[in-house]
Amino acid sequence: MGIQDEIRATRDVVCRLHAELIRWELVVWTAGNVSQRVASEGPSADLFVIKPSGVRYDELTPESMVVCDLEGNLVEGDRSPSSDTAAHAYVYRHMPTVGGVVHTHSTYATAWAARGEEIPCVLTMMADEFGGPVPVGPFAVIGDDSIGRGIVETLRDSRSKAVLMANHGPFTIGKDGTAAVKAAAMVEEVARVVHISMQLGTPLPIADHLIDSLHDRYQNVYGQGSTS
Amino acid sequence: MGIQDEIRATRDVVCRLHAELIRWELVVWTAGNVSQRVASEGPSADLFVIKPSGVRYDELTPESMVVCDLEGNLVEGDRSPSSDTAAHAYVYRHMPTVGGVVHTHSTYATAWAARGEEIPCVLTMMADEFGGPVPVGPFAVIGDDSIGRGIVETLRDSRSKAVLMANHGPFTIGKDGTAAVKAAAMVEEVARVVHISMQLGTPLPIADHLIDSLHDRYQNVYGQGSTS
Amino acid sequence: MGIQDEIRATRDVVCRLHAELIRWELVVWTAGNVSQRVASEGPSADLFVIKPSGVRYDELTPESMVVCDLEGNLVEGDRSPSSDTAAHAYVYRHMPTVGGVVHTHSTYATAWAARGEEIPCVLTMMADEFGGPVPVGPFAVIGDDSIGRGIVETLRDSRSKAVLMANHGPFTIGKDGTAAVKAAAMVEEVARVVHISMQLGTPLPIADHLIDSLHDRYQNVYGQGSTS
Amino acid sequence: MGIQDEIRATRDVVCRLHAELIRWELVVWTAGNVSQRVASEGPSADLFVIKPSGVRYDELTPESMVVCDLEGNLVEGDRSPSSDTAAHAYVYRHMPTVGGVVHTHSTYATAWAARGEEIPCVLTMMADEFGGPVPVGPFAVIGDDSIGRGIVETLRDSRSKAVLMANHGPFTIGKDGTAAVKAAAMVEEVARVVHISMQLGTPLPIADHLIDSLHDRYQNVYGQGSTS
Repeated sequence: MGIQDEIRATRDVVCRLHAELIRWELVVWTAGNVSQRVASEGPSADLFVIKPSGVRYDELTPESMVVCDLEGNLVEGDRSPSSDTAAHAYVYRHMPTVGGVVHTHSTYATAWAARGEEIPCVLTMMADEFGGPVPVGPFAVIGDDSIGRGIVETLRDSRSKAVLMANHGPFTIGKDGTAAVKAAAMVEEVARVVHISMQLGTPLPIADHLIDSLHDRYQNVYGQGSTS
Repeated sequence: MGIQDEIRATRDVVCRLHAELIRWELVVWTAGNVSQRVASEGPSADLFVIKPSGVRYDELTPESMVVCDLEGNLVEGDRSPSSDTAAHAYVYRHMPTVGGVVHTHSTYATAWAARGEEIPCVLTMMADEFGGPVPVGPFAVIGDDSIGRGIVETLRDSRSKAVLMANHGPFTIGKDGTAAVKAAAMVEEVARVVHISMQLGTPLPIADHLIDSLHDRYQNVYGQGSTS
Repeated sequence: MGIQDEIRATRDVVCRLHAELIRWELVVWTAGNVSQRVASEGPSADLFVIKPSGVRYDELTPESMVVCDLEGNLVEGDRSPSSDTAAHAYVYRHMPTVGGVVHTHSTYATAWAARGEEIPCVLTMMADEFGGPVPVGPFAVIGDDSIGRGIVETLRDSRSKAVLMANHGPFTIGKDGTAAVKAAAMVEEVARVVHISMQLGTPLPIADHLIDSLHDRYQNVYGQGSTS
Repeated sequence: MGIQDEIRATRDVVCRLHAELIRWELVVWTAGNVSQRVASEGPSADLFVIKPSGVRYDELTPESMVVCDLEGNLVEGDRSPSSDTAAHAYVYRHMPTVGGVVHTHSTYATAWAARGEEIPCVLTMMADEFGGPVPVGPFAVIGDDSIGRGIVETLRDSRSKAVLMANHGPFTIGKDGTAAVKAAAMVEEVARVVHISMQLGTPLPIADHLIDSLHDRYQNVYGQGSTS
């Protein structure tokens, strides 16, 4: 595919993935955004596609998506990019294997983020998907690189694909946009289940070596030759 | 547009916005109502359009909406106006920049209202949208101006576009009906997230100067040249 | 209308009202049932229409509804009547102004029922709809008149149209099936809001004379000349 | 029916039942699976149909379902069977009257499972459906027979058709796939109601002899000559 075909295909995917945020009830009104690298398999472009700022989900089309370079500058599109674009760009610049980024204010994950408390790994599905607790990132104000830097510094040495930015909400990463959206759906689900479990007592711990073996199996065996 | 065209356009908008109350699960059965000024941009009319009383949401049409003057008197329409019309009218009379008003009994916001407790500003999305805590208004009985007066006195000197009327539920305002519905969706979401966060501990505070700067940026930069 | 026309019209209404139980998320799988008197306005028939037993909601049709007399005997229909038919019949026999009965296991109302605890009247919408607390009825086993008797004895001297049968779930009544379904939706909503409010503290009380005046206004003024 | 017709019919049923998991909000993303024996009424085949691994629910078709023997080996199908296939196969080998098995990570049931706490029988609908508390099974790691053995050892001597596997989630059984899916929907519902009830106090107990009589009536009388 030429670069224009790759951009067009990525616009389609990113548009469709925003509908998944609604479908799994991860966003309200215009909140939340998904991005994906263009040609994430090759070196042909340092570009990504992201949602325009402040547009309702039911008005999103592939054409309304915007294309940015890895500094977050608008390269193609009629609208301003999402106000979280700088954070997405920072992640792509510093984590070359990441092909998709998602940000939501999903209810239970944001409730943990408001307390600045990591989600303990007490579910086999958490061990599968996140390989341990879901960590907390620093409080950071929008407008410079501090959100992006907080995400990268928290996730760089973690098996988790999700970080709870303090007082703010979750950011998730993946090999592509689909994997990052799956992580966004899963972090909300484990945030909800562990919250509910802790309301009436203390969940049973899972030993570290069992978390390791569950995570290893899931990442390498599950699915049709793919972890997404 | 002539005044009849403006009324017709406003009926369409107000009808469609009631469907948003259902879509974001802010109302049950016939509860809740949206209004919007006619010709809110100009002095040509002191009128607003509101839902008729006690009609099911799936039976609402643009034609069934009713038109009232700013005293809450019925000007045009076959049905009685919403029983909350006096409160909407009071707000329009006393807050000339308000072009839309919404009332719901949305679950979490009403739960805070029942305790008469303001929602503390511990989320960046609260700072963005409300610029601080969501305040509580007085207990007021339907039938005279006391609900409208309670709303206006609470919101007049606040950055919040939402007030929790004690034992009753939220009222929200905006430059038009869409902005007021967005505020109704957002106040329910922040009421839910902060409630859930507080069930297992104490949320981290956000410093006042950071709330100020988040609010300022969101109101002036976010979206496509518009805060709605 | 002749009696056969009245039966046909009532089958349509009762079938459609079961879809409302699903729409407001009041039932899971085959649980829950709605009934309505035939010719509730006149003395021409002592009959009511109710759901057949154990049939999935998406398989219900007007034709599959069954007709019973006020002893609960099957009068018309190919299937067994709901296993709660005896309770519905008892209510119709002993409360002549009741034209509709609904039973669900809706989540929050059933949670209050499991503790045998009435829902305190701390919301204006509760004062409007129920005129006070929602009372608890006795524990009663299916199979004789004890459920019906518990409903009637609890509601006979109450303004509430809903009763929480201990360890079981809510039953609601109304002048017709629609009013009883509305009460079923509202009792779940107030059960949810008051529950959530009490999780983080104590709701503010509403004085008895204010509850009285709210209830009086709502029953006599609200809606288009009708309280349903 | 010949064996190929039976397999085709079972593929249809199992595909349709996965849509029920979504409809009742029992699963997120690709989690969860349903299986059903082929020709469960006769001895003609020791086979069952199950979901392929890691496929999205909206991409499932009857043709994409896979057929396994009772050792869990793939007999027919283009894709790998669900990673939980060994557990389903173990149940079919050791419980000859079981014709359907379901596994989910449904929210409230999994929250109880994370604490390793059985759900006490304090609702008439629990007595009806489960005949007592919903028991907890051992912590077991995927990859050998330990999950299947944990299910069978817990359910063999219980009236419950659901088991909460510790830190993992519920497994349910039934005479066919439909009955097992109903049990999955009901275990989530009772997990939710009892959880909510216990948040504000202690549910009233139901005496053992009353649980027995409720269960007996429901299993033998309810429905149209069938307990499913």
